[in-house]
Amino acid sequence: MASATTPKKATAAAMQQSSHSDMSEQPYFPDEPARPIVRTQIPGPESKKAIAALDKVFDTRSLNMMANYQNSFGNYIADLDGNVLLDVYAQIASIPVGYSNPSLLLAATSPDMASAIINRPALGNFPQHDWAHILETGVLKVAPKGMDQVFTAQAGSDANELAYKAAFMWRRRQERGGPDVAFTEQEMTSSMNNQGPGAPDMSIMSFKSGFHGRLFASLSTTRSKPIHKLDIPAFDWPQAPFPALKYPLEQHVEENAAEEKRCLEEAEKIMTTFHSPVAAIVIEPVQSEGGDNHASPAFFKGLREITRKHNILMIVDEVQTGVGATGKFWAHEHWNMQDPPDMVTFSKKAQTAGYYFGNPELRPNKPYRQFNTWMGDPARALLFRAIIQEIERLDLVRNTAETGEYLYNGLASLSERYPQEIQNLRGKGQGTFIAWDSPRRDEVLRKAKGVGINIGGSGERAVRLRPMLIFQKKHADLFLEGMEKVFQS
Amino acid sequence: MASATTPKKATAAAMQQSSHSDMSEQPYFPDEPARPIVRTQIPGPESKKAIAALDKVFDTRSLNMMANYQNSFGNYIADLDGNVLLDVYAQIASIPVGYSNPSLLLAATSPDMASAIINRPALGNFPQHDWAHILETGVLKVAPKGMDQVFTAQAGSDANELAYKAAFMWRRRQERGGPDVAFTEQEMTSSMNNQGPGAPDMSIMSFKSGFHGRLFASLSTTRSKPIHKLDIPAFDWPQAPFPALKYPLEQHVEENAAEEKRCLEEAEKIMTTFHSPVAAIVIEPVQSEGGDNHASPAFFKGLREITRKHNILMIVDEVQTGVGATGKFWAHEHWNMQDPPDMVTFSKKAQTAGYYFGNPELRPNKPYRQFNTWMGDPARALLFRAIIQEIERLDLVRNTAETGEYLYNGLASLSERYPQEIQNLRGKGQGTFIAWDSPRRDEVLRKAKGVGINIGGSGERAVRLRPMLIFQKKHADLFLEGMEKVFQS
Repeated sequence: MASATTPKKATAAAMQQSSHSDMSEQPYFPDEPARPIVRTQIPGPESKKAIAALDKVFDTRSLNMMANYQNSFGNYIADLDGNVLLDVYAQIASIPVGYSNPSLLLAATSPDMASAIINRPALGNFPQHDWAHILETGVLKVAPKGMDQVFTAQAGSDANELAYKAAFMWRRRQERGGPDVAFTEQEMTSSMNNQGPGAPDMSIMSFKSGFHGRLFASLSTTRSKPIHKLDIPAFDWPQAPFPALKYPLEQHVEENAAEEKRCLEEAEKIMTTFHSPVAAIVIEPVQSEGGDNHASPAFFKGLREITRKHNILMIVDEVQTGVGATGKFWAHEHWNMQDPPDMVTFSKKAQTAGYYFGNPELRPNKPYRQFNTWMGDPARALLFRAIIQEIERLDLVRNTAETGEYLYNGLASLSERYPQEIQNLRGKGQGTFIAWDSPRRDEVLRKAKGVGINIGGSGERAVRLRPMLIFQKKHADLFLEGMEKVFQS
Repeated sequence: MASATTPKKATAAAMQQSSHSDMSEQPYFPDEPARPIVRTQIPGPESKKAIAALDKVFDTRSLNMMANYQNSFGNYIADLDGNVLLDVYAQIASIPVGYSNPSLLLAATSPDMASAIINRPALGNFPQHDWAHILETGVLKVAPKGMDQVFTAQAGSDANELAYKAAFMWRRRQERGGPDVAFTEQEMTSSMNNQGPGAPDMSIMSFKSGFHGRLFASLSTTRSKPIHKLDIPAFDWPQAPFPALKYPLEQHVEENAAEEKRCLEEAEKIMTTFHSPVAAIVIEPVQSEGGDNHASPAFFKGLREITRKHNILMIVDEVQTGVGATGKFWAHEHWNMQDPPDMVTFSKKAQTAGYYFGNPELRPNKPYRQFNTWMGDPARALLFRAIIQEIERLDLVRNTAETGEYLYNGLASLSERYPQEIQNLRGKGQGTFIAWDSPRRDEVLRKAKGVGINIGGSGERAVRLRPMLIFQKKHADLFLEGMEKVFQS
């Protein structure tokens, strides 16, 4: 209990914060706890018992904290021992508008939702009568610029892989000379033997430190850590360097520009010389699992130009960056590109998944080429619609932009006082999508629990912040105060 | 309206059937329609409008029928034009206990379900407090013999791919000499470049005409049709022949035994000589998408012996065969194997997905090797639990065995009268998992809608029956009557 925040202490701390946070801000989640409660070490005795029981049937070695979600509200996650933590990790960036959100609860208890749960359709064969309406008032209402169609999926990994499939089919269609050119007998026969030309030797180019999922093709584009890839057969696909920017950005302008130029040149070289033709590139607006690596809009625009020049598709993986946390609904909006990407994939905070596209040529030339039994889940599409409505009702993208700026400034000032603890602070102007490097990262994450804060890491030494969209200045104050306690310990 | 079944006609038909169906059977679904209603051609005018609207945002070329699930009950699927069809396809074999099932509705409207929908956890990091309980009273309660652990997934494709990953990690662990042997620097470096030894050249062997999903590794094991595989890069993995049995089985005993022997020999030859080491084989108890191809228990037992002999894992893909339709909860129970498979994958009627296993060595030696953000969905696990309870309450596995026998006998007698229409009838003793070959298959499926029956095909010319577990003798009578009308047309 040494580092526990007792209610009394927390009240005093909250009063102190009133000097710098905006006390006039309207709470988005009036019923959430006022502050964290830390009653025991984490895991406490009840959690330990439950974890041991779970381990008998389900691998718990990656378990971070066992939670009671019925007791979790807003930005706060509860465990089994009475601990309630301010959650800036949010289920690996996948809770959008707070635990036990009342608006989502209404959607989750609607007759439409009940039917969607118990009558799950095979959407490609037997879509429900209101599927177009659900898409148009939900998933497609927030479609990125230039995109008016969607192929729905189940999670980020398969969303990316389905986009890769669309890219390969598009590329071969170009090579064949159009949608009406028939498959040859040789293509049909060889495809059944997993050989070319039917199963062609083509590739997706990804970027060093990128993360795009952990199924076989998505894992072949993932370049995060060996532990994610070891022992799994992979496609021989290429990777380009991702810019290694130096911070603070304003002190390394020329150096960073040169680094991005170098990476663009190398990317173009690979695209044009790799032994297996590159059908598409896939890239995250901010490399998230790989350590929160950023690049400038100029870099991404450069990639768009190069891909256009060489007739290669550009897939933007917004699985982690999408749905509002960066101060834009889609992070790639920050690039202000006139020529949009070809496909944008999403999952996590959308609570459903898929890929957006606009070019009708990305619909394969025949039915059943891009197909599977469920092709998504209407229940999750209904939930995404409710999430979008909640984001609009509370103007949450504006909130992440504003709270993000406030949080970033607070961290910048903390980093001046604790320069060893907060290195390479990044994410300025990117909403709450903020991270820094820490020489004792895992210790920081562990100690944060002791002061009532749940944080995640990424890459080798990044502390990454992934608060929900309802994270406000008062939460930022609690967070900054907690971090300072950790740094002082 | 030429082929419509009017209520009056149907009543007469139902009375006629009373002579052979068991009128004393208790209806499982008292509120479902008594018989199909066909009011318009399918698609009717309302459906056509809705399909055109959907096509603007979502590919509809594989659309079979647009449905209104709120109006669908039990074995009957409703469309937008007042048509109500007896559904023996059931969302590609994935509706277990009827549309709008009241017991599932209770589960879907429970507070636990609402929380699971709105508070979706990252199960590997932050499992909910009752996750072990949900698994033990649900998914694991029906675990196949010899299996007491599960890794949960989202759908059949990723369930299979996760099982493949477990197999590859297990195999490399054997080669390394145990779980405690460290990865070499070379393995770590090469894995990041998608090269061996870190990303090893190893394979999964599947069977000709098999279907295991459509993501990249699962598609590499899928051998159903070129349209599923064309233009998609594939792993150079091997396929063994699947027995091509002749029907009726009792007239081809020796020939079929020889065919199975030939296939076993060929499978063993591939396992021991293929250029890339085979870590596991994957096989369906009945090849479903590939045309409803069966093999004898002796064949599967033979595969188990060969895989044991060569230290190769055996993965049984029960995505389509699992959860009761074959007259056993798992189709591989029909084999009566003393030595169970190493992993069994499931999805579809489970309404959730994953792989079962028993051998603790199939847990990778370190955390985060088998991992992803969601790792399944507690909402869907709660639904599977309710499905299991409903199956037990109504003794539905016994029902599929009994109704299946009744249905098979009815089809056998139809096939005597229409030998051109029903060829190679198969699935005897396999519950309602019945199919036959038809020289005019697609026409039969189309015409069946006109008499109020929704049926699916598989392979090149199979008519496959995939009724729900609540399909009773009275439904079998309606089905047989409808088929006879189609054959007479």
